[in-house]
Amino acid sequence: MDEFIIRGHVVNPVAIDRATMTDSVVHVGADGRIVARHDAGTPMAARVLDHAARHGMAVHALSPAQLLMPGFADLHVHAPQWPQMGRALDLPLREWLEQRTFPLEARFADPAFAAPVYDEMVRTLLANGTTTAVFFATIHEESSLLLARTCLRHGLRAHVGLVAMDDPALCPPAYRNASVEQALAATRRFIHAVRALPGNEGGLVRPMVTPRFIPACTDGLLQGLGTLAAEEDCLIQTHCSESDWEHDYVRQRTGVNDTVALDRFGLLRRGTVLAHSCFMTADDMALVHARGAAIAHCPISNAYFAGAVLPLRRAWQAGVHVGLGTDISGGYSPSVAVNAAMAVTAARMLDSGTDPDRPAATRGAPGSRLTFTNALWLATRGGTAALGIDAGQFAAGQAFDAILIDRAAPGSNILPPTHGEPDNVAEDVVQQILCNIGRPNIYTVWVTGRKVHGTDVTVA
Amino acid sequence: MDEFIIRGHVVNPVAIDRATMTDSVVHVGADGRIVARHDAGTPMAARVLDHAARHGMAVHALSPAQLLMPGFADLHVHAPQWPQMGRALDLPLREWLEQRTFPLEARFADPAFAAPVYDEMVRTLLANGTTTAVFFATIHEESSLLLARTCLRHGLRAHVGLVAMDDPALCPPAYRNASVEQALAATRRFIHAVRALPGNEGGLVRPMVTPRFIPACTDGLLQGLGTLAAEEDCLIQTHCSESDWEHDYVRQRTGVNDTVALDRFGLLRRGTVLAHSCFMTADDMALVHARGAAIAHCPISNAYFAGAVLPLRRAWQAGVHVGLGTDISGGYSPSVAVNAAMAVTAARMLDSGTDPDRPAATRGAPGSRLTFTNALWLATRGGTAALGIDAGQFAAGQAFDAILIDRAAPGSNILPPTHGEPDNVAEDVVQQILCNIGRPNIYTVWVTGRKVHGTDVTVA
Repeated sequence: MDEFIIRGHVVNPVAIDRATMTDSVVHVGADGRIVARHDAGTPMAARVLDHAARHGMAVHALSPAQLLMPGFADLHVHAPQWPQMGRALDLPLREWLEQRTFPLEARFADPAFAAPVYDEMVRTLLANGTTTAVFFATIHEESSLLLARTCLRHGLRAHVGLVAMDDPALCPPAYRNASVEQALAATRRFIHAVRALPGNEGGLVRPMVTPRFIPACTDGLLQGLGTLAAEEDCLIQTHCSESDWEHDYVRQRTGVNDTVALDRFGLLRRGTVLAHSCFMTADDMALVHARGAAIAHCPISNAYFAGAVLPLRRAWQAGVHVGLGTDISGGYSPSVAVNAAMAVTAARMLDSGTDPDRPAATRGAPGSRLTFTNALWLATRGGTAALGIDAGQFAAGQAFDAILIDRAAPGSNILPPTHGEPDNVAEDVVQQILCNIGRPNIYTVWVTGRKVHGTDVTVA
Repeated sequence: MDEFIIRGHVVNPVAIDRATMTDSVVHVGADGRIVARHDAGTPMAARVLDHAARHGMAVHALSPAQLLMPGFADLHVHAPQWPQMGRALDLPLREWLEQRTFPLEARFADPAFAAPVYDEMVRTLLANGTTTAVFFATIHEESSLLLARTCLRHGLRAHVGLVAMDDPALCPPAYRNASVEQALAATRRFIHAVRALPGNEGGLVRPMVTPRFIPACTDGLLQGLGTLAAEEDCLIQTHCSESDWEHDYVRQRTGVNDTVALDRFGLLRRGTVLAHSCFMTADDMALVHARGAAIAHCPISNAYFAGAVLPLRRAWQAGVHVGLGTDISGGYSPSVAVNAAMAVTAARMLDSGTDPDRPAATRGAPGSRLTFTNALWLATRGGTAALGIDAGQFAAGQAFDAILIDRAAPGSNILPPTHGEPDNVAEDVVQQILCNIGRPNIYTVWVTGRKVHGTDVTVA
């Protein structure tokens, strides 16, 4: 890969409560990592441009309506539910699982069914600006490995989990692991196979230990997976305290909350991704923080299946890693940006409450609001930091995982600042992007400096 | 205009709780109205196709991934807030009004500022599939009339209101009517001017009597506008019981709720559009029903500025006309479909409640859910029926206000049914469209048979 330079507006999530928008010069090295980002017009920026000119490097100047931002991180996607995205959300959870979701996932026993689904999904996620994704696949080794290969081929940074689920009380006969031993052996083989994939020497695609959730797994399986994750030094993902039903079920079976149960099984480790977590207590959050695990907040899905809004500010204030998940197909959108806007909206609805029959003073949970700047962090650096990935910000040494947004693209619902609005207020620009981004705005997408979607702007 | 025929999938909102998806033959007459819609393969459909062949009419066959649906009706748009769309939502209402919104609206005193804003807005709404819009303009006659002319030029069916606001207690000196008499005379001139616009003989663009909301208007102005609306037989729009603050303010000033106060002033009539209405009581709804007025539900905006969710099922069950509003820029999206999906999501969050610290049994307001089929109705026929317009369904005699959706368009986030999913379940297809529609999916838009956006598919 050749080094290149991009000059123009850069939106950078600096911290969970601070983003900047600065006219910048960004230097991307031959290894796909950011060599430097400097404010335009500074001596350092001039030196980079000089260096580029002397070495014949491609320099791309953005238009005033264009900007660079980090790629999105999607911490929770059920890959096999892709064909069901935006369908069946009117069903109750049990019916949704038994009549639609489990039968659909069971079809992935056939790699010929899986191949076009996974190909379409990976290409669509990239086209929506997702550069890092965390996938639940299915219990099927061959098609799950196919998913890993599909991510690698298209250049999507991904974590892929072979799902483990063995409890006959919840899992249908046609779609569950045959035994604890079978599930553990399959998971170990899958971890080795993903790590050994040709072209995966840089670790772009990583395996994940993936107990579906406590209600779907026997104690033996959960314990075995905890041990396996430690032995293989492998990240873990699962669902956690999602809904009243699930939270109560775990308490009845184990006597404790999900986090404590997971911790006893060795499943709460640095980098463990806990989807949903709506019903975590302060103690749960302290434990998650102590272990260095993360929450994948899935605000659209939670409106349909959780029955409550995750008090995300609490998790943030407890020091817990937090990112966003689309939770396809419990969530209907493949766009992390749409989920980011929904995170802000849902936080407002938690803050104010929703029922006009109650007096304002007792309607909501004041202090729960999020800003769009917070949501940008969740959608980008929050997610990559949770996974321990050096990406998600424009900072020296981080991978160049980025999106070129064109606010003046034909078909844009983001308004370029053509009516005299200020164009240097990061919060406003971030808000416009997260609220109204559409596929026409996503001009180019890079992962580790490799163009993975759109137009190659660095080729003259 | 020449008659034409379209053959293919048609999604039709039959009632608030019923939509159909049928392979159809739609015959559009020279007057832009639907002559007939027949199920494909029936003798009636064959007769229409025969007739078309004999008369050399254009016949367009949709692909299996394409479908026709009614255009969207947006019952509440603040046209001058267009440049602020997707900005400033983090501000409290008072700051938002005083520091951002009123100063922005005041700029429309200059028609040269208004012209490009209104042009961009009308084109963008059409591109998002909106075929009927109800606008608050500003207090300025010239630029408000310019808005009406802009709608007419681009073919958008519209209701345009010259805003009336005269109370110095709330309205800044630089942006309010000089007196009751001035406001009434301006409104009367505006009504006559819109009705007399060249090219508006068919009434595509209609004036509306538009008191901003009770807190911004003196009693004299409200009474005068009520009398004027009756004299001119002109529809009315205003805000109603939007937030705790507004609702309480009106109760303190008038001793009654908004609906009763509006009714006393003669402002609650057949076709009056009441934006928001979150805090309406059962008595309010009964009164609104008795008068034949309508509610414009604005679910995105309400999350930011109302502090509660309108219990829309209650309004529907009380027989009140209900439609959707984007409420730009209190709402951030120009898309009625995005608001329709949010209506379903918000209803779930009203139903379940949002605060996980409360027990499930007392968290929400059960019985509040909406389906996507309900939301389709709100987004289309609910809105046009509220306004007394014969459009919004594929039925003989209605205006052909329609969108051609292409689910296989490059850049689509709607998944065409390519993985074996059933494609005849209207609820699922409606859900996919409302959840994931983007501008790439909106191939052609018609108002009264006139192509107002996209590709002219009826020209060979």
